[in-house]
Amino acid sequence: MTQKIAILGASGYTGAELVRLIATHPSMEIVALSGERKAGMAMGDVFPHLRHLNLPALVKIEEIDFSGVDLAFCALPHATSQEVIRELPLDLKVVDLSADFRLRDPAEYEKWYGKPHCAVEMQKEAVYGLTEFYRNEIRNARLCAGTGCNAAAGQYAIRPLIEAGVIDLDDILLDLKNGVSGAGRSLKENLLHAELSGGTYPYSAGGKHRHLGEFDQEFSKLAGRPVLVQFTPHLAPMNRGILASAYVKGDPQAVYKALSDRYASEAFIEVLPFGGLPSTRSIAGSNYVHVGVSADRIPGRAMVVVALDNLCKGSSGQAMQNANLMLGNDEMAGLTLAPLFP
Amino acid sequence: MTQKIAILGASGYTGAELVRLIATHPSMEIVALSGERKAGMAMGDVFPHLRHLNLPALVKIEEIDFSGVDLAFCALPHATSQEVIRELPLDLKVVDLSADFRLRDPAEYEKWYGKPHCAVEMQKEAVYGLTEFYRNEIRNARLCAGTGCNAAAGQYAIRPLIEAGVIDLDDILLDLKNGVSGAGRSLKENLLHAELSGGTYPYSAGGKHRHLGEFDQEFSKLAGRPVLVQFTPHLAPMNRGILASAYVKGDPQAVYKALSDRYASEAFIEVLPFGGLPSTRSIAGSNYVHVGVSADRIPGRAMVVVALDNLCKGSSGQAMQNANLMLGNDEMAGLTLAPLFP
Amino acid sequence: MTQKIAILGASGYTGAELVRLIATHPSMEIVALSGERKAGMAMGDVFPHLRHLNLPALVKIEEIDFSGVDLAFCALPHATSQEVIRELPLDLKVVDLSADFRLRDPAEYEKWYGKPHCAVEMQKEAVYGLTEFYRNEIRNARLCAGTGCNAAAGQYAIRPLIEAGVIDLDDILLDLKNGVSGAGRSLKENLLHAELSGGTYPYSAGGKHRHLGEFDQEFSKLAGRPVLVQFTPHLAPMNRGILASAYVKGDPQAVYKALSDRYASEAFIEVLPFGGLPSTRSIAGSNYVHVGVSADRIPGRAMVVVALDNLCKGSSGQAMQNANLMLGNDEMAGLTLAPLFP
Amino acid sequence: MTQKIAILGASGYTGAELVRLIATHPSMEIVALSGERKAGMAMGDVFPHLRHLNLPALVKIEEIDFSGVDLAFCALPHATSQEVIRELPLDLKVVDLSADFRLRDPAEYEKWYGKPHCAVEMQKEAVYGLTEFYRNEIRNARLCAGTGCNAAAGQYAIRPLIEAGVIDLDDILLDLKNGVSGAGRSLKENLLHAELSGGTYPYSAGGKHRHLGEFDQEFSKLAGRPVLVQFTPHLAPMNRGILASAYVKGDPQAVYKALSDRYASEAFIEVLPFGGLPSTRSIAGSNYVHVGVSADRIPGRAMVVVALDNLCKGSSGQAMQNANLMLGNDEMAGLTLAPLFP
Repeated sequence: MTQKIAILGASGYTGAELVRLIATHPSMEIVALSGERKAGMAMGDVFPHLRHLNLPALVKIEEIDFSGVDLAFCALPHATSQEVIRELPLDLKVVDLSADFRLRDPAEYEKWYGKPHCAVEMQKEAVYGLTEFYRNEIRNARLCAGTGCNAAAGQYAIRPLIEAGVIDLDDILLDLKNGVSGAGRSLKENLLHAELSGGTYPYSAGGKHRHLGEFDQEFSKLAGRPVLVQFTPHLAPMNRGILASAYVKGDPQAVYKALSDRYASEAFIEVLPFGGLPSTRSIAGSNYVHVGVSADRIPGRAMVVVALDNLCKGSSGQAMQNANLMLGNDEMAGLTLAPLFP
Repeated sequence: MTQKIAILGASGYTGAELVRLIATHPSMEIVALSGERKAGMAMGDVFPHLRHLNLPALVKIEEIDFSGVDLAFCALPHATSQEVIRELPLDLKVVDLSADFRLRDPAEYEKWYGKPHCAVEMQKEAVYGLTEFYRNEIRNARLCAGTGCNAAAGQYAIRPLIEAGVIDLDDILLDLKNGVSGAGRSLKENLLHAELSGGTYPYSAGGKHRHLGEFDQEFSKLAGRPVLVQFTPHLAPMNRGILASAYVKGDPQAVYKALSDRYASEAFIEVLPFGGLPSTRSIAGSNYVHVGVSADRIPGRAMVVVALDNLCKGSSGQAMQNANLMLGNDEMAGLTLAPLFP
Repeated sequence: MTQKIAILGASGYTGAELVRLIATHPSMEIVALSGERKAGMAMGDVFPHLRHLNLPALVKIEEIDFSGVDLAFCALPHATSQEVIRELPLDLKVVDLSADFRLRDPAEYEKWYGKPHCAVEMQKEAVYGLTEFYRNEIRNARLCAGTGCNAAAGQYAIRPLIEAGVIDLDDILLDLKNGVSGAGRSLKENLLHAELSGGTYPYSAGGKHRHLGEFDQEFSKLAGRPVLVQFTPHLAPMNRGILASAYVKGDPQAVYKALSDRYASEAFIEVLPFGGLPSTRSIAGSNYVHVGVSADRIPGRAMVVVALDNLCKGSSGQAMQNANLMLGNDEMAGLTLAPLFP
Repeated sequence: MTQKIAILGASGYTGAELVRLIATHPSMEIVALSGERKAGMAMGDVFPHLRHLNLPALVKIEEIDFSGVDLAFCALPHATSQEVIRELPLDLKVVDLSADFRLRDPAEYEKWYGKPHCAVEMQKEAVYGLTEFYRNEIRNARLCAGTGCNAAAGQYAIRPLIEAGVIDLDDILLDLKNGVSGAGRSLKENLLHAELSGGTYPYSAGGKHRHLGEFDQEFSKLAGRPVLVQFTPHLAPMNRGILASAYVKGDPQAVYKALSDRYASEAFIEVLPFGGLPSTRSIAGSNYVHVGVSADRIPGRAMVVVALDNLCKGSSGQAMQNANLMLGNDEMAGLTLAPLFP
């Protein structure tokens, strides 16, 4: 049985990534693609790498007839997303890729995003889409909120350690190296090839990055007490991938055991042998996550390294995984593409 | 029905690419992987991006029992390949990715490769694997010779023009821009990131590149007279992709018609609208080919631009396409993965 | 004696490159920097790599007192440049880096740039700034027009061959591979790292690129008859550098002799041994030009390859070289920085 | 007065970088270049970017007459360096770029480098070459030991904080992002463009990197008690540059004050305004260092970010700065080249 899919906001990178994944998905069919500024254009003109596919042209959202749609992916910008989703039919399954429904607390939303939420009821209804930790809730959700890509990477490193109680909750430090596609297709000087290639630098340093709101919410809930982490991303001259270097205080072997136990049955999460060091090149283009643990020479300190593809497992792949759950598909449907290397 | 596949020479890039393609192939299963120097290692240790797959360990070729194998891909170095293939069971279907069986004429082989061929009978038997032009022969072949990646790119640009008789056969010029994976996983100074990134330069200039042997053989056969082309590749700081800029003398509209007519029913070959300019970024990671034609301001001169992925359509994807034909599969099985962008 | 220098349009890449060169120039001092949209900012905030220098803040052009200025570099956008320069003091020496004064014929200017020139008298007065070929004129010029970066690369390959009469004037083909900084600091989707890195594609194909106006003017003048060349640039994922592959019909040894004779006494132009193949990596960051000649296997055909840095020798370095001549300095002053490798 | 310079080990990247710097140095002249495996070759054939320079050919070390040499830079591999240096004339000034003379304690040397030192007396005599902190000792040294490039980056971040007593000495964490040229011109699979470009990963994790020996020695000496830091480098797809993200516990304003006070009079070290975030792109190709400090949202925690060019300020530029001191030159001679951007 074919599932009819709409993608709202298909002219950005996460929208295109969804199309890429659906191209080899066994049961999904794209019936509508929206793109406000590019309405009227063929998808193959917006993204030439998709020109071989038989796709509907981009339209404005209001032109879409949702009556026959089984699920909508919403890949719109933050703030826009909540405005669009509250107008969608209430029985339509929605997987949102924006930041709009990640935080449960309206005050936290306003703190991190700078304005009140306009669909507070839906904010409460939404399920947080970190699949491996909210699988049952997602299966029954109508509205699933995709996580931040950094938030996903950091949580894959830290959640099992909080669950297992093996680390100092007051000394968690996340140093991330981020591929540039995380910034989207936005026209900014610092994203130009001439400015970015061949160099690296931190941004949103010192606790300013919005994904901290997700870390605070999730880690505190898990720990049953407030947990604040340090988190600084660094832009690296690569298109896809996040490498999260998480520095924790705890016994390295206990850290390793917590992670390998927790992920033993997770098909998309590969825990390397102790001491193994993940690379973003080994997961790019795929939904797989590589996790490594190293002991430091200083006793009681460990480094957990997580590598994932921000556009796939960190965004559109996660969204697809959640959509599979919501539609009763095999969770891995369309997501077993191997990473692209070299 | 599952087809049992062996990959000889699985520790190089084309071997790994075959594994990537088979990972989502509907009917193929890998039963043996060989790697002389890395025999005994797990494939996931040689190529960490494949570690999530359940694969046999690398072995030496003589350890493989070919009795249950339906088809062997041979991704060995040139010269080694012929020595290995002549020892394989005579009823085993073989798709060779090396240069060893591309040229029909032993003298031509010796001229371009510097030593006599050691399996001349098989050299005669082998079918040239440019799928779109040898489909019927490949379907019935036991031994199929993969083309050179440059030779594929150039032929996609030029063959229809010779067939249609729309260009001057004495003035064909191919300027290629080549991704570095074409050089394989070899340890050479000029392939280091520090040496190659951020720059470009020509190599094998002036008619020295071995793929000229294929151009000579194929174009002359097609034209019924000797055809010599100019061909110079340039190394570009990209991992995958060949961009072939083919400069021809002929009416641009006739050139365009010849190409769009010829490829109208080819699922993997996309001819862009007249004046369209292909990019390697739009085909990387896929088996698709983009073809564009532009008129020059000087009447009677045209440029044909072909973009393909050297590791996929130029090598392992082509090999898979041919294997599908030889095994009676849908020709596109396992090959519809969309390109990876960005 | 210190020469007082103003740079108009200092917030773009060519402006920053001029500042870089002047930083180690023995006799020049920057007294004014203009940047319309960034007026009021410190140069070190616009270009952090220049923050160690003691530089005047960016101002609007009308704020500059030109009375004590010895020479102004004008690194403004095309069309703006002519409007600004015609208002400058008539005794001020000016080196213009825009396209505005490259073409002598107002009709040609209008044809290539789409509108009439607004300073036709100055257009006639200006000297074409290809230093090695207009050295005496430049020495006496008040207004020197920098060449296009592609135009420079192509002319270094072809001019000596026309002068020596060793090639077929009706069959000159230039295939260029271009670094992205040639497009300036402009916010365009195709210049984003995510879009450009790892791939290559042609642009302005088929005789549409504006630098053809310079080729036409210069080659025809040199040959004493109309000469039209084919010229197609390709964007390559590198920040600096142009590699011009020039395909000509003529005896390769005669071609080589013409080039090595012509450039024997030119300090910035290195002709490699016959068969040598230049790389953009070997000249990046410098004012040096590498020239190589290869014979094709087809008799009577040769390839000339020129590598230069588009921002330096192709633009700001050339401008500095010309300014040195106009100010009576050693022509090489400030320009002997070795290329940066790796 | 011209100073006659020999470079031992000129066929590697640090050797070539020294040649680049001397090319515009006001008083140095290269009189000898050694390269064991490439003896007999012209430097311009080993490094085409240096071919415009008039340089002596590479020779074996034993062919060099040191009688007229004022100073030798020794850019040989670790372990080889000590064997060569102990045979040099005892009155020859030597700046060593290897690891051989960085550690004062023979036991520490053996611990980190795995074998006994063969020139223990010289090991004691050598001065540690972190210019800004050992300026007087260097001025009077005969043998100066260049620091590790990571060790330099980390020390620029941390030394003033230990001196000022503003941080917790037991909780210093260094996460470095490293350009690939730091690995030298060595032929390793992981340094190939196809393997490295577009991705990032940690290496020598958990306290295994040899530069820890330098941190231990220097920080403990400074603090007057043992100080052990955490330090993990990550390979990033860039050719030049180290970005050191140093996480410390201390008042951010006190941290900032310690750094800005300490470096106020240092010409090569730029402390950005509080909150400023350095980029490796802003220092590449130069001897300048950018230092930034950010407060974390958690009180009492700060991040110090240091960007420097590993080949220049981290190695050959530092060596030149020290050589200037040893020869009585202006310390900045030949080192004021502005960074290359873009």
